[in-house]
Amino acid sequence: MRRYRATVAYDGTRYCGFQRQVSSQPTIQSELEQALGRVAGSEVLVTGAGRTDSGVHARGQIISFNLDWLHGEQALLRAINANLPADIALHAVLEAPPDFHPRFDARRRAYQYYIYNRPTRSPLHRLYSWHVHRPLDLQAMNAAATHLTGVHDFATFGQPPQGNSTVREIFRARWRGDGECLVFEVEGNAFLYRMVRSIVGSLRAVGHGEWSVDDFVAAFMATDRSRAAPTAPPHGLVLVSVYFD
Amino acid sequence: MRRYRATVAYDGTRYCGFQRQVSSQPTIQSELEQALGRVAGSEVLVTGAGRTDSGVHARGQIISFNLDWLHGEQALLRAINANLPADIALHAVLEAPPDFHPRFDARRRAYQYYIYNRPTRSPLHRLYSWHVHRPLDLQAMNAAATHLTGVHDFATFGQPPQGNSTVREIFRARWRGDGECLVFEVEGNAFLYRMVRSIVGSLRAVGHGEWSVDDFVAAFMATDRSRAAPTAPPHGLVLVSVYFD
Repeated sequence: MRRYRATVAYDGTRYCGFQRQVSSQPTIQSELEQALGRVAGSEVLVTGAGRTDSGVHARGQIISFNLDWLHGEQALLRAINANLPADIALHAVLEAPPDFHPRFDARRRAYQYYIYNRPTRSPLHRLYSWHVHRPLDLQAMNAAATHLTGVHDFATFGQPPQGNSTVREIFRARWRGDGECLVFEVEGNAFLYRMVRSIVGSLRAVGHGEWSVDDFVAAFMATDRSRAAPTAPPHGLVLVSVYFD
Repeated sequence: MRRYRATVAYDGTRYCGFQRQVSSQPTIQSELEQALGRVAGSEVLVTGAGRTDSGVHARGQIISFNLDWLHGEQALLRAINANLPADIALHAVLEAPPDFHPRFDARRRAYQYYIYNRPTRSPLHRLYSWHVHRPLDLQAMNAAATHLTGVHDFATFGQPPQGNSTVREIFRARWRGDGECLVFEVEGNAFLYRMVRSIVGSLRAVGHGEWSVDDFVAAFMATDRSRAAPTAPPHGLVLVSVYFD
């Protein structure tokens, strides 16, 4: 039995998030476990670095699993991909130390959030970005976003997935323009449940002038979940990378 | 009764091309005519600048139609979009001269073709690019593509949609890298049936070293449809713009 680490990309559109559900609803984890079960001929359990929500996408989710496999990593990659649906794919598989754990060992996670910012909706952007009709003030949104970097209590922007601490460290939080889209790039040691989407929702309020940068900072500092603006929808969000030591 | 000209974007994935079919299969034209019929309360016929194939996308298709409408162009745009499915949208509507015809009056069309060029497939690129596993030689493909510009007989790369001439003028044909994708940008006065996809299929052969640039030129100059390499699939192609005088 060897331990493997793999990079996974998925289109979250038709899934109820990453994590296996008690019900039979489709999730990324259950699809991966089914594919690995077919490859292994026995039950395989998958652990992921981040529990992405229903509708959230990934380009660089990291998973681990144990498997008896004799034919090399490239053959394993092909065998698993051949058993996965078109909207989930492994991009790399490597053998890992026996005690490797993608969630506990992860040091940084990087997400991107896409906003399509034009008056009329775009069929070609609809699955992977949030359509915001009115123009957003990128400069104001970036002025607010700079306050996020550092070690802070992010209780305004989410609930902790486990444990009780709402303190996290953000290394980078910046908007950039990309054609008709605005892209929010954020990197942190870990994230609270719905934290990126809640931050994006509140920065949207700044971008429309409903909140000043000071309003944003006051809501942030209040460490009060009820002070956040409405959470941005899931389909604009993508887990880009997970970093380890 | 006024004549209107509109810019249309669509995700061609679930459509049998632009043009209305005798059967009841869904097409872009029939969806547009249904939406306009609901807005007008009577039958409206739609003409398009380009008859995109089954599965081909558009960001800047141009259509025209006649309509009795009293509430201004912005209100018309909203009314039509409210009646269209999520994978089709109008981006602009303007009144046009009574004799405006999007196909006959068009002077240039611009297409892009996306290739996702990585060893493993990408769930987030799967709907809008052709997955080519083995690395492509961008420089060789561009060396071949330069031979396309000018007035030539393109019989090797397609059949004429009407009339018998296979002579067309290409103003621009160039590949560029865009992250994990290669994008072919091509602009011409008009295109034969499947011409862009056939050119891309033959340039793929050059990119893999199966054809030299001279082989490509020889096939092109033969003006013989049987000399083309296999046609590239439709879902990598997007009609970007149509230009008028």
